[in-house]
Amino acid sequence: MKEKINLHSEQFLNELTEFLSIPSISSLSEYKSEVKRSAEWLAHALEKAGMENIEVIETTGHPIIYADWLHAEGKPTVLIYGHYDVQPADPLELWDSPPFEPVIKDEKIYARGATDDKGQLYIHVKAIDLLMKERGSLPVNVKFCIEGEEEVASPNLGPFISENKEKVAADAVLISDTSFIEKGQPAICTSLRGALALELEVETANTDLHSGSYGGGVPNAVHGLTELLASFHGDDGQVTVEQFYEGVPEPTEELRSEAAKIPFNEKSTKEALDLESFYGEKGFSFQERTGIRPTLEINGVSGGFAGEGLKTIVPGKAQAKISCRLVGDQDPDYIYKQIEQHVDKYKPQGCRVRLNQLITAKPVSLDSRHPILQKAADSFERVYKVRPLFPKEGGSIPIVEVFSRVLSAPVVLMGFGLPTENLHAPNEHFHIENFTKGIETVCDFLNEI
Amino acid sequence: MKEKINLHSEQFLNELTEFLSIPSISSLSEYKSEVKRSAEWLAHALEKAGMENIEVIETTGHPIIYADWLHAEGKPTVLIYGHYDVQPADPLELWDSPPFEPVIKDEKIYARGATDDKGQLYIHVKAIDLLMKERGSLPVNVKFCIEGEEEVASPNLGPFISENKEKVAADAVLISDTSFIEKGQPAICTSLRGALALELEVETANTDLHSGSYGGGVPNAVHGLTELLASFHGDDGQVTVEQFYEGVPEPTEELRSEAAKIPFNEKSTKEALDLESFYGEKGFSFQERTGIRPTLEINGVSGGFAGEGLKTIVPGKAQAKISCRLVGDQDPDYIYKQIEQHVDKYKPQGCRVRLNQLITAKPVSLDSRHPILQKAADSFERVYKVRPLFPKEGGSIPIVEVFSRVLSAPVVLMGFGLPTENLHAPNEHFHIENFTKGIETVCDFLNEI
Repeated sequence: MKEKINLHSEQFLNELTEFLSIPSISSLSEYKSEVKRSAEWLAHALEKAGMENIEVIETTGHPIIYADWLHAEGKPTVLIYGHYDVQPADPLELWDSPPFEPVIKDEKIYARGATDDKGQLYIHVKAIDLLMKERGSLPVNVKFCIEGEEEVASPNLGPFISENKEKVAADAVLISDTSFIEKGQPAICTSLRGALALELEVETANTDLHSGSYGGGVPNAVHGLTELLASFHGDDGQVTVEQFYEGVPEPTEELRSEAAKIPFNEKSTKEALDLESFYGEKGFSFQERTGIRPTLEINGVSGGFAGEGLKTIVPGKAQAKISCRLVGDQDPDYIYKQIEQHVDKYKPQGCRVRLNQLITAKPVSLDSRHPILQKAADSFERVYKVRPLFPKEGGSIPIVEVFSRVLSAPVVLMGFGLPTENLHAPNEHFHIENFTKGIETVCDFLNEI
Repeated sequence: MKEKINLHSEQFLNELTEFLSIPSISSLSEYKSEVKRSAEWLAHALEKAGMENIEVIETTGHPIIYADWLHAEGKPTVLIYGHYDVQPADPLELWDSPPFEPVIKDEKIYARGATDDKGQLYIHVKAIDLLMKERGSLPVNVKFCIEGEEEVASPNLGPFISENKEKVAADAVLISDTSFIEKGQPAICTSLRGALALELEVETANTDLHSGSYGGGVPNAVHGLTELLASFHGDDGQVTVEQFYEGVPEPTEELRSEAAKIPFNEKSTKEALDLESFYGEKGFSFQERTGIRPTLEINGVSGGFAGEGLKTIVPGKAQAKISCRLVGDQDPDYIYKQIEQHVDKYKPQGCRVRLNQLITAKPVSLDSRHPILQKAADSFERVYKVRPLFPKEGGSIPIVEVFSRVLSAPVVLMGFGLPTENLHAPNEHFHIENFTKGIETVCDFLNEI
């Protein structure tokens, strides 16, 4: 199989380049038609690979793609999930090459979506293609259920799965949308943090005011917002929202020793990112802070005049975006209510505050001892000559919890990304070695279960 | 004179409309050629009005316009100052009509620069024009010294005045760039606050990072910035920068009773601006806070992702613009150093902070008992039938301090704006009544001194 992959790798990369050239940014409405074009491109690729019953299913947002091949009688059914939508590309000026004109450099392919998730998703399309060409059939039954709204928290896929339980029923769910620990060290993620995201707007007046005539005498929306935002964390790095830590598992020796197993090089991370220091909750390591602890991060802020030069105004409006990562039994809806109360309690004088919930996802936990996860580990080991670790991932894939709950099937998070591949940031890329070895690993896994 | 003005008012307004149509935004480099076009338009208008020795003097920024008429032997010389540059127009979506397509509605002319300062400046051009047409000469010697950089704090006019003391020497300086107390109540401003403006940038990493992988474990530039910005004010509304209040005059009974004379309607201001409450230093009234007290205001803030939707990032960079209004003997350079120290002391862990000074201007004070200010008051009274008040203005016109110091001449701040005319904000406008009565007042003043 390895030889076949190498033989076709140039063609595979050309196809991936085409896929990556479509700016399928799901969060920006002006890209709606590009997101659809991306869905159609992928549906066509699945057809060419030999999948059947292909559907591009319209939703109130972006389409879901379904496809299956169900002729492996008596064999288990694997549902493959991935997403063809990508994050926005800005700030554009920090990209070394345009985000939607893929470039291959130093054995990596650079483009928005390269590692998250088009490159990883396309591994599965090519694995099916090769197996089909080699054997004329697949060793197991396969379903694809692919969405275009992962980056906006999957508002339509959850309901679709609940309403189409039989259609998507499977013995295992296979997802490649996570990362290795580092180059050469594969990982099967066993925990994903939940998420809660919201917008917060502060308004003090119906217009910006001249700072000479009104400054010092009327409330300033940016002052109000910054005061409010600064109230979310204590000096010890803890989140100060009341009851925020309710449902967070006690950091037992076992949890801590698991987290400590994740290799992490403080010095090289500091250098690569030009950090002056790390940061976070007192008494926890970096791996614990980003793996087993919940967080509240301000993702962006804006208000008043921020262009070239100066406008001497008292801003009348300012806004921020905030997201939380949740663990254990933390409930996003409950946390949202607690944040509402916090904002109400701490809002400065003269400020009208509006909150708007954007995303919720429950945390999810997977058992590394499950035979199917162990089989996935065997496949990784055969290809990479290293047994994967089973880390707890700091990120969130909201739909995993839904798959796990609704289908009652084990979810295998067989990620081929690297944590250094700038996902959600400028110069996102994907290592070609993990693209080709990924195809080999997936073929091995489907052959062996 | 009144009849003549009314006879020509339509033509005058057509000319002003032309002047206002040129987007002479001095702070944005892409408008440089428009700023120049505005200067040339005005130079031509001065020539048509009968002024002589007209020069459009290039600087490292935008041109200074000089013109004179010096044939009134034995009579005093009046130097008229104004500015032909304007503030940026954003946020554009809040304008009811395009900012550079002037519209006349309800006896007001709407456009960026209508009241600040093109409309007020053009009053003087038309006053000279009419006097010249009526008498064939002027009652006094007149010089014009007009700049295109007032909205960026006059970096070139100060040095120009110092280097051309004789050229611009005068017995009085006449400026219309301030406001009435309210409709029907003229004012001659006797005090302008000083100014200090700066940019503050916080950097924590060389890129934005995925909040799932890094959130809670690395410093967040927006957290750092908001914490820092929130540290500038105490709960009592006071500025917490050390020694900030050094040089601020004691709020004596006299100062307070002067401030109290300025009519201010709390209820109607609150309603018009949709304020929930006023704000400011404990123990001071609105008029005191905006007139005799110094302030520190955040004019704008930005960082991370603030567009449509969500990007779950830990921002690596964030920035703010800050400006102070200064009074009495406060020194902008000293305050800047104190702010540097404050930032150094309060900067959160892991934050690299950069400061950049944008503007400095010293506070200025004028004596209302000076005969020339009293003559200006007489002219106002003859036209408006109300004697003007002599308020302390909260804003800053940096060049006034320079005129006052270098030329040792009294400065007459004969403003024709209204405080409700949205200067520096969307839907800026100018009352046509004050445009025509302004011409009458200026003619009267030049005739009487």
